[in-house]
Amino acid sequence: MSPGKLQLPIALDAMGGDSAPACVLRGAEMALIRHPGIRFLLYGNRHILEPLVARIPLLKAAGDIVHTEAVIAGDDKPSLAVRRGRDSSMWLSIESVKEGRSCAVVSAGNTGALMAMSKLILRTLPGISRPAIAALFPSLRGECVMLDLGANVESDAHDLYRFAIMGDAFARAVLGLSRPRIGLLNVGSEDLKGHDEVKAAFQLLKESATDINFHGFVEGNDIAEGTVDVVVTDGFTGNVALKTAEGTARLIRTYLREAFASSAVARGGALLASGALKAVKEKLDDRKRNGAMFLGLNGIAVKSHGGADATSFCNAISVAVELVTHHINARITQEIKLSAKPQPALETAGGEPG
Amino acid sequence: MSPGKLQLPIALDAMGGDSAPACVLRGAEMALIRHPGIRFLLYGNRHILEPLVARIPLLKAAGDIVHTEAVIAGDDKPSLAVRRGRDSSMWLSIESVKEGRSCAVVSAGNTGALMAMSKLILRTLPGISRPAIAALFPSLRGECVMLDLGANVESDAHDLYRFAIMGDAFARAVLGLSRPRIGLLNVGSEDLKGHDEVKAAFQLLKESATDINFHGFVEGNDIAEGTVDVVVTDGFTGNVALKTAEGTARLIRTYLREAFASSAVARGGALLASGALKAVKEKLDDRKRNGAMFLGLNGIAVKSHGGADATSFCNAISVAVELVTHHINARITQEIKLSAKPQPALETAGGEPG
Repeated sequence: MSPGKLQLPIALDAMGGDSAPACVLRGAEMALIRHPGIRFLLYGNRHILEPLVARIPLLKAAGDIVHTEAVIAGDDKPSLAVRRGRDSSMWLSIESVKEGRSCAVVSAGNTGALMAMSKLILRTLPGISRPAIAALFPSLRGECVMLDLGANVESDAHDLYRFAIMGDAFARAVLGLSRPRIGLLNVGSEDLKGHDEVKAAFQLLKESATDINFHGFVEGNDIAEGTVDVVVTDGFTGNVALKTAEGTARLIRTYLREAFASSAVARGGALLASGALKAVKEKLDDRKRNGAMFLGLNGIAVKSHGGADATSFCNAISVAVELVTHHINARITQEIKLSAKPQPALETAGGEPG
Repeated sequence: MSPGKLQLPIALDAMGGDSAPACVLRGAEMALIRHPGIRFLLYGNRHILEPLVARIPLLKAAGDIVHTEAVIAGDDKPSLAVRRGRDSSMWLSIESVKEGRSCAVVSAGNTGALMAMSKLILRTLPGISRPAIAALFPSLRGECVMLDLGANVESDAHDLYRFAIMGDAFARAVLGLSRPRIGLLNVGSEDLKGHDEVKAAFQLLKESATDINFHGFVEGNDIAEGTVDVVVTDGFTGNVALKTAEGTARLIRTYLREAFASSAVARGGALLASGALKAVKEKLDDRKRNGAMFLGLNGIAVKSHGGADATSFCNAISVAVELVTHHINARITQEIKLSAKPQPALETAGGEPG
């Protein structure tokens, strides 16, 4: 590290996740190779972390351990974690973002606790009432962003409108698109379909003063087809769609495995086609797309899968780096401001006294 | 046909669907072999149908053509179809159910029009305010029923409760289960999760006086995992989940096709494994599960895929036959009655004037 060179500090919850801290630290090492301009604040128990970091020279040079006593478990209730976990690696790593000591936090820990703590510590951006969870999905055209994946169970038209603005900013930062196409998830693509909230959100998006590239309504099959770059929906529907897609992919993988094991000829075929099958597996691999963001907060908080390995955790760090370097929150704030209709100047009624 | 033998008359909208009437008639022929106890009322233009039926001896013997002039097109607006299509094969075939000339109607025509006409002609069963669309999904344990798939865009707790009763009756009839496990789709399996309507529906199902086998909340991935036999949800979420699953399956098929075509070795492997791949394709084949029912109406109306081939249309007829022979509507009506809490006898207040 050359003296005087500015580096992006990223906070890591080193104790969160099924394979923490090992995978977190190895993932951090990989990220340092991928993004030479970053450094880490490693939140966790120093008695555990120090000997591990000592064996990773790159991380030893670009990482500072911040000692924390407590750890939030994967099955801790979010409400309890928030009340009793203020000395935890999760809480303190999020707090470092609020206090400006880091630009972003990445955690593979308990999703509910991370969401609750992030909301409480970072608060929402001006003009945003509900944060949303956004992540990437595979599609026939590459990848698309979907949100909300479950931060909320109900969303009104204005929430959906703001999710669209946040998803737009996310797609620009993470997918590098200049004008992502935005679709609103519905049960049909005609303007007349759907419930009141999606119909009202459709109007808001159509008449938006921002430069959002609104495609219109899309349906469930459009997610995988890549009809749009951003799929906007409420957290209930988004969560069900995400898990239905995961379940379907798992079902097909099981069918394939059983079929390939069913006879010697099939086994031979699977062996010959193993390279091709591996390529398909990689395309569907969640690890490649690891890193869901809690959008709409005053600070960048990225959630890694709890079962993330080092490569996967490194990918979540990359998402955080992209969001920081593309100033996602500045963009969201600016677009939300543009959306607020200008207040007409208060006219003084001629007939009034004085 | 032996004289005096009672046969189940099924009405077919012979003009509905992409390949009508050819696939409808061939499908009807296959159904006559599969279910010797049925006969058909074939609604459509007799100038078109007569020469075709003449070439199918089995159908000629067990099918009566009922001449109709108009045809509802696949892109006709339901509201318009209802107003102007009263002389259509679709309208008149549904009407035959209402008038008792047939036990069920099967159509591969315009879904929206079929739904609107069925509601208008057949009306809902006592105690049911909203009908629902139910169909089968593939799962790791075989098949499961999901409803509502889009008959409604909003459902309250009582609607969801009634969907559970209707789905239970559907699973008993079509899957032949004695006590199907019922799951309520949510964003988590804990009791505290979800919005108010699913939480209230959970209570209604838990405290139900019927012998419904309520498993509790399930998530999107549970559909394909086969955690329960019946997945109950609102029509918005159900429609998105159905189409997301279809889109995901199509995405994986495309990935596999591209991967197998990528090299000579992969092509060789695919050739050797072609039997296994065919088995997987068959397991995922929608045609096997063709036949969605509009549940909750005073009569049985089954919707076949618009693009159904003969085998697929025959399967939709089989669904209708199962529903008729298992008296699905009698079961639904009985369970709905059991659910209605007994009204306490009106007490006369003592102090009231005589």
